[in-house]
Amino acid sequence: MGFAEATKEYREKIEAALSGYMDSCGAPEQLRAAMEYSLKAGGKRLRPVLTLYTCNMLGGDVERALPYACALEMIHTYSLIHDDLPCMDDDDFRRGRPSNHKVFGEANAVLAGDGLLSYAFQIMLDAVKADLTENAINAARAVSLGAGVSGMVAGQVIDLASETAENTGIDELRFIQANKTAAMIKAALLAGAYIAGASQEQMIALGQYGELYGALFQMTDDILDVVGDFEGMGKTLGKDEAENKLTYISLYGMDRAKDLASETAHQAVEAISIFEERAELLRELALSCLSRRS
Amino acid sequence: MGFAEATKEYREKIEAALSGYMDSCGAPEQLRAAMEYSLKAGGKRLRPVLTLYTCNMLGGDVERALPYACALEMIHTYSLIHDDLPCMDDDDFRRGRPSNHKVFGEANAVLAGDGLLSYAFQIMLDAVKADLTENAINAARAVSLGAGVSGMVAGQVIDLASETAENTGIDELRFIQANKTAAMIKAALLAGAYIAGASQEQMIALGQYGELYGALFQMTDDILDVVGDFEGMGKTLGKDEAENKLTYISLYGMDRAKDLASETAHQAVEAISIFEERAELLRELALSCLSRRS
Repeated sequence: MGFAEATKEYREKIEAALSGYMDSCGAPEQLRAAMEYSLKAGGKRLRPVLTLYTCNMLGGDVERALPYACALEMIHTYSLIHDDLPCMDDDDFRRGRPSNHKVFGEANAVLAGDGLLSYAFQIMLDAVKADLTENAINAARAVSLGAGVSGMVAGQVIDLASETAENTGIDELRFIQANKTAAMIKAALLAGAYIAGASQEQMIALGQYGELYGALFQMTDDILDVVGDFEGMGKTLGKDEAENKLTYISLYGMDRAKDLASETAHQAVEAISIFEERAELLRELALSCLSRRS
Repeated sequence: MGFAEATKEYREKIEAALSGYMDSCGAPEQLRAAMEYSLKAGGKRLRPVLTLYTCNMLGGDVERALPYACALEMIHTYSLIHDDLPCMDDDDFRRGRPSNHKVFGEANAVLAGDGLLSYAFQIMLDAVKADLTENAINAARAVSLGAGVSGMVAGQVIDLASETAENTGIDELRFIQANKTAAMIKAALLAGAYIAGASQEQMIALGQYGELYGALFQMTDDILDVVGDFEGMGKTLGKDEAENKLTYISLYGMDRAKDLASETAHQAVEAISIFEERAELLRELALSCLSRRS
């Protein structure tokens, strides 16, 4: 049974909780509609599923982890809405549907993003109020750090800068991937672990896995972007865009990038060896990235 | 001694704390610079000063209220950066300087706003971790509610919609003013009150004052926009813009708007009568709005 199938129950829990949060958010209708349009656009829910899976794996109560999981998904969604804006990546489509600003206009898309980010924190603060413990506040802080100015927002800023800069290389790529992609995945794992009251050793192992899996995720994305182009699958990159974009392929070439992905997947598996068979799905998740590239 | 002069010490505390937070934010240099450009642009610090003043008025420890005060100012600043974007109000200047996107570009301005909002919550979560009490989490929640989808973001969405809608009137204006302006002022007062461990009665009084002062602030802004135009002072509104914009003047005319402002100021003073002379500066702050309009 693959990761997606095995975590179906978690995904259903998350969908139900997200719907409940949106129904009770108290936003004016046009704001709620714009937020919900992107939040319910059929994402895979990777980050919140990782939070619930990790919490359960370590013997924690999945219900207590649910607000932090939903907050992560809202923050991920706000970042996609802002990324798609004309002044950013200028993407007209997201997950096969018109992007938020194409439907609601740019101003409302900016505000829908601001709303989702604000609401994510409101949900976490409510959760901490209901459970005024070190573990709860640490879970909220993990999400905050992953999302913030030394996490996801930092990665986005350097990613944008790298598109116009001349001297960019492996350091920039690693920074972007660690912050834009891996920071939120790591935050998802740590939030679940905090709620379960994980040990320091377990936290370190999960943090390493998150960093490695985030890197791996980016590498296989880069590979698929190019392979997808050659074979007419996946995203279509114009030749100029593909050449200018800082990717693992542009830096290393396809063969070395594939080797790197393979090494990284095995390092990720190694990082969580202390959990033995309990972390079966995390192992599978990392290794499944390698078959994405066929 | 006026409000500004009497609260100089608080303002200095806030400036120092904001500088400290920016120095240790961990953001990449270009992100930090863009955030700081707007955060240190010489605002009056009304909201954070209200937090510290209220906390002290009720016998609380001002130092404990400082993180929430700074978070309020960061959230206020992010909202100005996003408001000024070309897709929103399209303002090239803010406080006499080029607006954030004119200096750093639109994409970085979006991200500087996202960064300030994220960092504001990070600072509050750190403060709650250091002081894991009901009062601390309630202070953070008050800020979150004021800033969020049933507060400031809601007001902004309806404000934008009112600019193009045909049937807008007093209900929309009240909603915009209550959410876009008053919600954050109310949050500032409540955050300080929570940290001081205020009673329910005190909370209600401060909440009412916040709502009334927020309304008053908007009314006198509207009056000054027009008077400023007539006498060549203040903001210059084009005639068409002034006619289409939903304001207290467009709805009531100047004379009735001035009467309303005067009534509202006295209601605000009445709301905080339970604090007697301790709330002297809040009284003065409300009444001073009436002399703004000369």
